[in-house]
Amino acid sequence: MNEAVKTLDGWYCLHDFRSVDWTSWRELSEAERSRILTEFSKFLSELELTKNIGEGEQTFYSIIGQKADFVFFLLRPTLEDINAIENRFNKLEIADFLIPTYSYVSVVELSNYLAAHMAGDEDPYENKHVRARLYPELPPKKHICFYPMNKKREGNDNWYMLDMEERRRMIRDHGSIGRTYAGKVSQIIGGSIGLDDYEWGVTLFADDALDFKRIVTEMRFDETSARFGEFGAFFVGNLLPLEEIEAFFRI
Amino acid sequence: MNEAVKTLDGWYCLHDFRSVDWTSWRELSEAERSRILTEFSKFLSELELTKNIGEGEQTFYSIIGQKADFVFFLLRPTLEDINAIENRFNKLEIADFLIPTYSYVSVVELSNYLAAHMAGDEDPYENKHVRARLYPELPPKKHICFYPMNKKREGNDNWYMLDMEERRRMIRDHGSIGRTYAGKVSQIIGGSIGLDDYEWGVTLFADDALDFKRIVTEMRFDETSARFGEFGAFFVGNLLPLEEIEAFFRI
Amino acid sequence: MNEAVKTLDGWYCLHDFRSVDWTSWRELSEAERSRILTEFSKFLSELELTKNIGEGEQTFYSIIGQKADFVFFLLRPTLEDINAIENRFNKLEIADFLIPTYSYVSVVELSNYLAAHMAGDEDPYENKHVRARLYPELPPKKHICFYPMNKKREGNDNWYMLDMEERRRMIRDHGSIGRTYAGKVSQIIGGSIGLDDYEWGVTLFADDALDFKRIVTEMRFDETSARFGEFGAFFVGNLLPLEEIEAFFRI
Amino acid sequence: MNEAVKTLDGWYCLHDFRSVDWTSWRELSEAERSRILTEFSKFLSELELTKNIGEGEQTFYSIIGQKADFVFFLLRPTLEDINAIENRFNKLEIADFLIPTYSYVSVVELSNYLAAHMAGDEDPYENKHVRARLYPELPPKKHICFYPMNKKREGNDNWYMLDMEERRRMIRDHGSIGRTYAGKVSQIIGGSIGLDDYEWGVTLFADDALDFKRIVTEMRFDETSARFGEFGAFFVGNLLPLEEIEAFFRI
Amino acid sequence: MNEAVKTLDGWYCLHDFRSVDWTSWRELSEAERSRILTEFSKFLSELELTKNIGEGEQTFYSIIGQKADFVFFLLRPTLEDINAIENRFNKLEIADFLIPTYSYVSVVELSNYLAAHMAGDEDPYENKHVRARLYPELPPKKHICFYPMNKKREGNDNWYMLDMEERRRMIRDHGSIGRTYAGKVSQIIGGSIGLDDYEWGVTLFADDALDFKRIVTEMRFDETSARFGEFGAFFVGNLLPLEEIEAFFRI
Repeated sequence: MNEAVKTLDGWYCLHDFRSVDWTSWRELSEAERSRILTEFSKFLSELELTKNIGEGEQTFYSIIGQKADFVFFLLRPTLEDINAIENRFNKLEIADFLIPTYSYVSVVELSNYLAAHMAGDEDPYENKHVRARLYPELPPKKHICFYPMNKKREGNDNWYMLDMEERRRMIRDHGSIGRTYAGKVSQIIGGSIGLDDYEWGVTLFADDALDFKRIVTEMRFDETSARFGEFGAFFVGNLLPLEEIEAFFRI
Repeated sequence: MNEAVKTLDGWYCLHDFRSVDWTSWRELSEAERSRILTEFSKFLSELELTKNIGEGEQTFYSIIGQKADFVFFLLRPTLEDINAIENRFNKLEIADFLIPTYSYVSVVELSNYLAAHMAGDEDPYENKHVRARLYPELPPKKHICFYPMNKKREGNDNWYMLDMEERRRMIRDHGSIGRTYAGKVSQIIGGSIGLDDYEWGVTLFADDALDFKRIVTEMRFDETSARFGEFGAFFVGNLLPLEEIEAFFRI
Repeated sequence: MNEAVKTLDGWYCLHDFRSVDWTSWRELSEAERSRILTEFSKFLSELELTKNIGEGEQTFYSIIGQKADFVFFLLRPTLEDINAIENRFNKLEIADFLIPTYSYVSVVELSNYLAAHMAGDEDPYENKHVRARLYPELPPKKHICFYPMNKKREGNDNWYMLDMEERRRMIRDHGSIGRTYAGKVSQIIGGSIGLDDYEWGVTLFADDALDFKRIVTEMRFDETSARFGEFGAFFVGNLLPLEEIEAFFRI
Repeated sequence: MNEAVKTLDGWYCLHDFRSVDWTSWRELSEAERSRILTEFSKFLSELELTKNIGEGEQTFYSIIGQKADFVFFLLRPTLEDINAIENRFNKLEIADFLIPTYSYVSVVELSNYLAAHMAGDEDPYENKHVRARLYPELPPKKHICFYPMNKKREGNDNWYMLDMEERRRMIRDHGSIGRTYAGKVSQIIGGSIGLDDYEWGVTLFADDALDFKRIVTEMRFDETSARFGEFGAFFVGNLLPLEEIEAFFRI
Repeated sequence: MNEAVKTLDGWYCLHDFRSVDWTSWRELSEAERSRILTEFSKFLSELELTKNIGEGEQTFYSIIGQKADFVFFLLRPTLEDINAIENRFNKLEIADFLIPTYSYVSVVELSNYLAAHMAGDEDPYENKHVRARLYPELPPKKHICFYPMNKKREGNDNWYMLDMEERRRMIRDHGSIGRTYAGKVSQIIGGSIGLDDYEWGVTLFADDALDFKRIVTEMRFDETSARFGEFGAFFVGNLLPLEEIEAFFRI
């Protein structure tokens, strides 16, 4: 089996981007809006219970620009969990005022390029550091950046035709850039081959949004991205804590 | 005649992806929703009769993310059958609350690269194993993965300019990867050259959705996909048994 | 003048793909639907008169999948004729319940690669066989397949930089594949350079839809398509005779 | 300065493609439709005044197929003029029944490749022949063809990396094809680098729509187009004289 | 660290393109429209206060063609500021009559290729000339031109695989073209790697819109653009001063 397949996989992820239909929302009376937000708030509180027992995570960020008004980022152990929450969300009254604009399905992934240096007989899924990455606690950073990406397969720039050593060397160099941003930029890599349209969905968190620009720019000059990176849309946003959601919807 | 044309062809397939217009659906009274679901349910029961006599198959999977709420996967002997069912579906009241989001037309195909090793004078359409693949019974697996794909025709990576031997060797290697997932991943290959926008529509079934990621990743490192695979959108979902459809629509 | 320009050109063609807005259609009373269908039917009868005197053709096929519910394929001597019928169609009441989904404009074309072997002093437009192809009687085949296509102009695969001899040889090989499907597959080639987004619009007719898959697959292995074919969307459908249109719309 | 920049520039152009919302239009009473058309007609008459004093041009062509019902082609000395007319048009009642489908912004351009052979000390903007091309009187031809285009910049086919001599030679050959259609096909080249998504917007006029197919086909075999032409959508239509606009909208 | 990463970064930018829903807007009474415009006007006046104390900028330009009716170009110190204004805008009544058509997120950027020649120990953020570019006062030019762009990474034309010296030389040549337009064309470069879909968003201002065509054309023949420039959509418009906004919306 190709070593690249031997990833460690954690929680499934759904990035659910939505815009608010402010026109219809405004047409409601304040009492109606309040009732709908109460239902929404109760739903979110239930989700927090799961989070509190370490069986999943979720967060909201408001998105800058017209691509969406917010992203609901959801992590759970199974696709059944993800789907059940998604369907419950769609059946809430608030959903009548939300317009889906983009979504992405992936699973938190730790690549074997990086995982390789563990003790041979240890079950990595029992390793504390591995678990912290596969079942992450979301950092309360002020900004989010999400983008899906592929490794290119074009003419002489075909990542999947390189041999393992060459890929490992490039990934190592690539990772060393990432490490210089430790403390400033946290990342969650979602593997999505066979799950969604790109091969990975990358989620970055930072308190200074310029660090998104810096790390992505610096990596773009790195051979891994320069020759092989293919990027989808970029979404950037600001943390929207639960206690501010009501204000977000207030008119 | 080019040998690659000599495929064995079974049932026609329609993948019909739809989302629910929850807002309009909620506006109905519970009695109305119940009446509409009863009509829908009667329609589905009739389709089951065909299935029970082995003259077609169908199944529902709920889809993760915003691409669709579910896929209705339909297999029948003729395009007339497919079209008749599709038109009846569109005339049901439930269809007023369903938004078409994507569809794909193909025909179950057994490639001659794989079919070649049968006894020369046997009619393959009478062979039990061949029939089981051309007119498949859908596996009751928990997850589905659908994606359309092409073989690339770009510069030096032109599948259709390779000679038969080279293609046969690559397909054989490709198939040997697939066989290591026997029991875990079932697949139905739908040929769609001349029928829809890509050349094939691939449907995978598995109880562990991570196996979709594993098999597609491993194949991507195989020359057949690495150099020649061109992929459309990926849809992944959870089995939605007939007896759960009412709950799916319940508000 | 480049010989490739010397095509013979017949009737203009409009492929007009539409879906039915079943929700609005169902909201009408049966009497209203009947009145609207009567107006539509009268319009279609008038078009048949033109067909009967050999001054144009038209046909309906229901389309499989979500790309459209049907295609109205119209052939007439001038763009003014096409436009007049199109505008009358749009002003019919039925048009309020039809959603345009795609259209294609072309003109029936007989390429000079194929036309070359006629007697030098004969006016080809007076030749009986040529006329039968330029002003075709549509075959009452059970299935239609439509797709637009280009000849590629990329790097070393640039059709328009090949010399005439090379193009003629390839077209000849390509045509010889087509001839092996004589009787099974009829085709109308619509030239559309300067008229619509692709260079040709190809319409195939067959009683066995698998013949679409077979002929397009076999041609794809031919150098003309393998190196130079660029394909748009494929639409496949079932003959919808005039006498079945009322049933098609019946709820 | 690169010589290619030294174009002569005339009137700004707006190609404004719209479809009619026939359903809403039909719902009006005949009196309402008449009132709205009267307002529209008055607006158009005012525009004719500008045309009559040679300070701009405009015309309508009905478009074949679903891309639009008509194009309003507007030429004026400044972007302020264009924008003012566009905004007045949008505020007319008729605009409530028109659906924008595409638009293109450019400026009539005479390339320096062609303009070069004038007397060195003559102000070209005073030259009668130049003025006739920069501030053209629209030919009352029966058909229009519009398409936007780029010159390719890919690998070895990079127009902008060729030297001036090579570009001049190719443009000269290209132009000589155009001249063989003199009298049959009139053209207006709109330069749109920095103004819209493609580099040029080409508008052709002819009494025989087949001449669009002939000239574009013949040019496609010319190296300039074969290696360097990148084309957007093609729109083809029939002249819609002012006096027929009422009939066009009549139901 | 790669030197290209060491940009100087100023205000965040949002280009917010919207069209007016004239049909719904016209349905209002004049009193309602007036009330809504008063609220809008008050909102804009508040934004002007920020501008007056040098803590941000904003401007409106009406856009030519169907891509949008206007762009609201907003510059502020933080993404939180941008998002707060955007959300307030969306909650205004006027927003019910505005249709989002495109947006772009970036941050004013001074590249280190150009910034390099400052005294080594000076804090560039304290340099008056640098500050004037990072926190620009918008020029009251009559026209705007906006387009997003990438540097290409394809085969031999891979900007990110060039060495620093080569990039610096090309950027220097590129900049020298720009300087010949000093006084005629002002530009604001927004860096957007990690923030939006392209790598930069370029905003040009000029009193003569032909200067947009001239500068972009001349640069396109420069190696930096010819080989490496990849361009998104181009938007061009006319200055819409605050005092003309009411007239813009008047029916």
